[in-house]
Amino acid sequence: MTPAFSTKTEKTFRIIPLGGLGEFGKNLMVYEYDDTILCIDAGLMFPEEDMPGVDIVIPDVTYLVQNADKVKGFILTHGHEDHIGALAYILPQINVPVYGTRLTLGLVRNKLRERRLLDQVDLRLIDEHSKLEFGPFNVEFVHLCHSIPDAVGVVIRSPIGNVLHVSDFKFDPHPVDGRLTDEAKLKALGDEGIRFLLSDSTNSEVIGFTPSELELEQVLEKIISEAPGRVILATFASNISRVQQVINVAMRHGRKVGVTGRSMINNTRMAAELGYLTPPPDGLLTPDQMNYLPPEQVVIVCTGSQGEPTSALVRMSRGQYRHLRIGKGDTVIISASPIPGNEKMIHRTLDNLFRLGADIYYDELFDVHVSGHGSREDLKRLIELVQPEYMIPIHGEYRQLVLHARLAKSLGIPEDHIFIIEDGQVVEVGKEWIFTDGTVTSGRVLVDGLGVGDIGSVVLRDRRHLARDGFLVVTVGLDEETGEVILGPEILSRGFVYVAESENLLDDAKEVVWDVLETYDSVQDVATHLHTALADFCYRAMRRRPMILPLVVEL
Amino acid sequence: MTPAFSTKTEKTFRIIPLGGLGEFGKNLMVYEYDDTILCIDAGLMFPEEDMPGVDIVIPDVTYLVQNADKVKGFILTHGHEDHIGALAYILPQINVPVYGTRLTLGLVRNKLRERRLLDQVDLRLIDEHSKLEFGPFNVEFVHLCHSIPDAVGVVIRSPIGNVLHVSDFKFDPHPVDGRLTDEAKLKALGDEGIRFLLSDSTNSEVIGFTPSELELEQVLEKIISEAPGRVILATFASNISRVQQVINVAMRHGRKVGVTGRSMINNTRMAAELGYLTPPPDGLLTPDQMNYLPPEQVVIVCTGSQGEPTSALVRMSRGQYRHLRIGKGDTVIISASPIPGNEKMIHRTLDNLFRLGADIYYDELFDVHVSGHGSREDLKRLIELVQPEYMIPIHGEYRQLVLHARLAKSLGIPEDHIFIIEDGQVVEVGKEWIFTDGTVTSGRVLVDGLGVGDIGSVVLRDRRHLARDGFLVVTVGLDEETGEVILGPEILSRGFVYVAESENLLDDAKEVVWDVLETYDSVQDVATHLHTALADFCYRAMRRRPMILPLVVEL
Repeated sequence: MTPAFSTKTEKTFRIIPLGGLGEFGKNLMVYEYDDTILCIDAGLMFPEEDMPGVDIVIPDVTYLVQNADKVKGFILTHGHEDHIGALAYILPQINVPVYGTRLTLGLVRNKLRERRLLDQVDLRLIDEHSKLEFGPFNVEFVHLCHSIPDAVGVVIRSPIGNVLHVSDFKFDPHPVDGRLTDEAKLKALGDEGIRFLLSDSTNSEVIGFTPSELELEQVLEKIISEAPGRVILATFASNISRVQQVINVAMRHGRKVGVTGRSMINNTRMAAELGYLTPPPDGLLTPDQMNYLPPEQVVIVCTGSQGEPTSALVRMSRGQYRHLRIGKGDTVIISASPIPGNEKMIHRTLDNLFRLGADIYYDELFDVHVSGHGSREDLKRLIELVQPEYMIPIHGEYRQLVLHARLAKSLGIPEDHIFIIEDGQVVEVGKEWIFTDGTVTSGRVLVDGLGVGDIGSVVLRDRRHLARDGFLVVTVGLDEETGEVILGPEILSRGFVYVAESENLLDDAKEVVWDVLETYDSVQDVATHLHTALADFCYRAMRRRPMILPLVVEL
Repeated sequence: MTPAFSTKTEKTFRIIPLGGLGEFGKNLMVYEYDDTILCIDAGLMFPEEDMPGVDIVIPDVTYLVQNADKVKGFILTHGHEDHIGALAYILPQINVPVYGTRLTLGLVRNKLRERRLLDQVDLRLIDEHSKLEFGPFNVEFVHLCHSIPDAVGVVIRSPIGNVLHVSDFKFDPHPVDGRLTDEAKLKALGDEGIRFLLSDSTNSEVIGFTPSELELEQVLEKIISEAPGRVILATFASNISRVQQVINVAMRHGRKVGVTGRSMINNTRMAAELGYLTPPPDGLLTPDQMNYLPPEQVVIVCTGSQGEPTSALVRMSRGQYRHLRIGKGDTVIISASPIPGNEKMIHRTLDNLFRLGADIYYDELFDVHVSGHGSREDLKRLIELVQPEYMIPIHGEYRQLVLHARLAKSLGIPEDHIFIIEDGQVVEVGKEWIFTDGTVTSGRVLVDGLGVGDIGSVVLRDRRHLARDGFLVVTVGLDEETGEVILGPEILSRGFVYVAESENLLDDAKEVVWDVLETYDSVQDVATHLHTALADFCYRAMRRRPMILPLVVEL
């Protein structure tokens, strides 16, 4: 690994993850050689619970902005949010061509249109047969199966050898669209020689092969064919393949299909337009038809599988969905697994659906979902096909990267040929050596409303503080000359105690303020001591620590 | 079910859940006949994520306070927080005797001592052979297996028949303390005739029998015997049996055991004193010994299995634990399953442990935990032994109650003999009829610091609002006579934008304030319009909705 001689003048190949390694989502991988940078994917992640008020999280692309003249383009592997969702925020900073398959670009177009960027962006269509050239890089593609159609892996032929970037994928012998992961091409690439394999670690904690979509379809078939009334199936809005499966099953059993939930409707319409979804010959149901057709003729596909508060299923579960009331005789299928952190919201939704008397199928007791990501045996098979010289696990939280690395080691890849790196760490590759000790700026950029990146640790800390204990603003006006109190003290408080029932407590707090005012007179002194005395009072009285803000003004 | 004649004068038996039915935790069941009320358990639950700042949640016992003269006592089934944790808050309101087994009372004593209530409370020791009389009720007990020793079920012989209250339990053929769930007694009770069975629904979503602790011990034995260095095992502090298992395994392999984490140390000490835990003959390790003994001789049991921020394991995972640094060669076992809602915290802890280079065993890939609750087959076996006439599923979220009810139905209990009720709903039983349409006051009481019940929906709503978007207080002082602005406008804001870098924005906000001040002059008008104008401004500028509080005073 260590260079035998100084290599300052040698051109090197650099692999730099700016997102997706060490935490889930916001995938963005940078490949660099000389004056060429090629990016793969630009995804978002959803905020963690310690980021209140934050809408989405995108990767920090300072490194790309600083090297903007080198960046030749973004290649997208598929159309999921964690792979395309940051484009609308990044492209205004680095406007380069974006390459993607037809369905992927369709989804990108929707996003860009929403943010009124569509006419400013250069979208370029590829398919799995495309060949692209970016300076020293020759790029080809490999078709992959995933839970959304039209996913590809990316082969980069570079001066240091071939790199295979396999994003989200699985080996499904019976995918919904019949298009298998292209094992022959993977094998051929392996035979040709792959220096680096980068591969999805999401399911490296899951034993076995990921079951086929066909197995799932059989389960859905059984449930739908036996259901006495309406069937309502919730899944991810991006899971076009699942929608197709439901349509297929429904048609076999004389049922009609409706789709509801804004993102589900948009995605379904777009996928149908582009030919990635075959709707029933007589079309999808209108909201009215969903409600008024005989229940045993209806299947509805909707959003809400994660218990998202404003989704169609959650509104149905609360009886707040105008078009549809769930009740006894209805069958609900949650065809998704919980994204960690969403469990409680999902459980609440399930409980409410049970209260309505419906029959519910969900992942605890029934196999009503299969993952779009390969499990340990899929990951092994890929490594065996490709036989890479070096390996970098990508797409996963740290433990998942480690488990994937161990899997690779168990298949004979030497430990020092496997790099467990995280966002911002650089793998620098020369002809004869590899360095892994460099880093570039990376991290999370928080988006809240129109603010991109303005919310940082200070504001988040304040928000968490306010959430826990609320605040107390005390306003005092002092006579500039006499120091006499001519305004206030006025106490404003929210989130600390229930103000309407805490008059005594707030009166006591005012007494504390008066005590301070009698002792100190410089404005600065008063503010500091008000802070200390009130903090002390609140803790003694309630064992709470509200944020305390004194406003002392001289008039 | 419907009474054939008016029954106003008949004495009735009432079953009233005040906690634990329809949501997880804070178990409290009320049995009432004539002028006698007997309570079983008084537990707490931990706050949900939409209750920021709340420490714990206890049941609303208004009904008990209103009927205080009838309440004869609390019977505790076992020593877990969700069964005993609310006592310290309830007993000051209704001071009645508390009955429990030795270990249970030991744990209760610890809690009461912390809150300086120990000398005011009447604790009465029972064992599984005890017989108690409370007016019309004769009470007996049945030994049950659970993840804490000394658990009991409660039999109430009442004028309307026998009621069997089976709290948390499982049928484990090889429990750690060798004391089996007393099937013979359950069978005998069944033969004698049980009118009502109330039974734990926690694992009604889990297929099969809950595996035996013996199977788990074999897994631990394999890991610990093969570990090259130290072994650190995290589990629930209340899981005395798991600590015993670790001690047993460690001794067989020439290792010594240390215990760390405040609650783990307290519980272990207490259990050892009372004879429920057999420590190694040469005692437990001191913190110094844990650190300096040869690693291959050391096993450490600690708190932190749920990723709790201040627990021993989490501090170790961050390198912030003074007594111990985890590194390569160490083996960490997370011997617990995630409580829903804790997944993310657990994942972060695992990721940090992996970063330290340790070998980690956790529930995704390894069977390093078994539940203390019976699964579907255990639940079935109980019903088959007891053959109850009526059944009420208890201890579970709504869907778990429903699934338990369906299980009972599948075993031949008629649907109209199974009552799915939630907290506050009354099952009223006469000789010839049963009503289920009554309700009593019930719900959640939030404890935040010294405040018990003062935090309600208003404060929580404010806290959530502040967490999402922060606040903006604008202060203006107007001359009482001229209406001229003589103070301010001053704007104080936190959690909305990063104040230090938002001078322009806040200057613009002041302009908005001036615009309003120039247009309106009555104090009331100014305040109202300031609110509207600033809310509007913040949304236009940032698409955020901070809490806006105008303070307009006349001087």
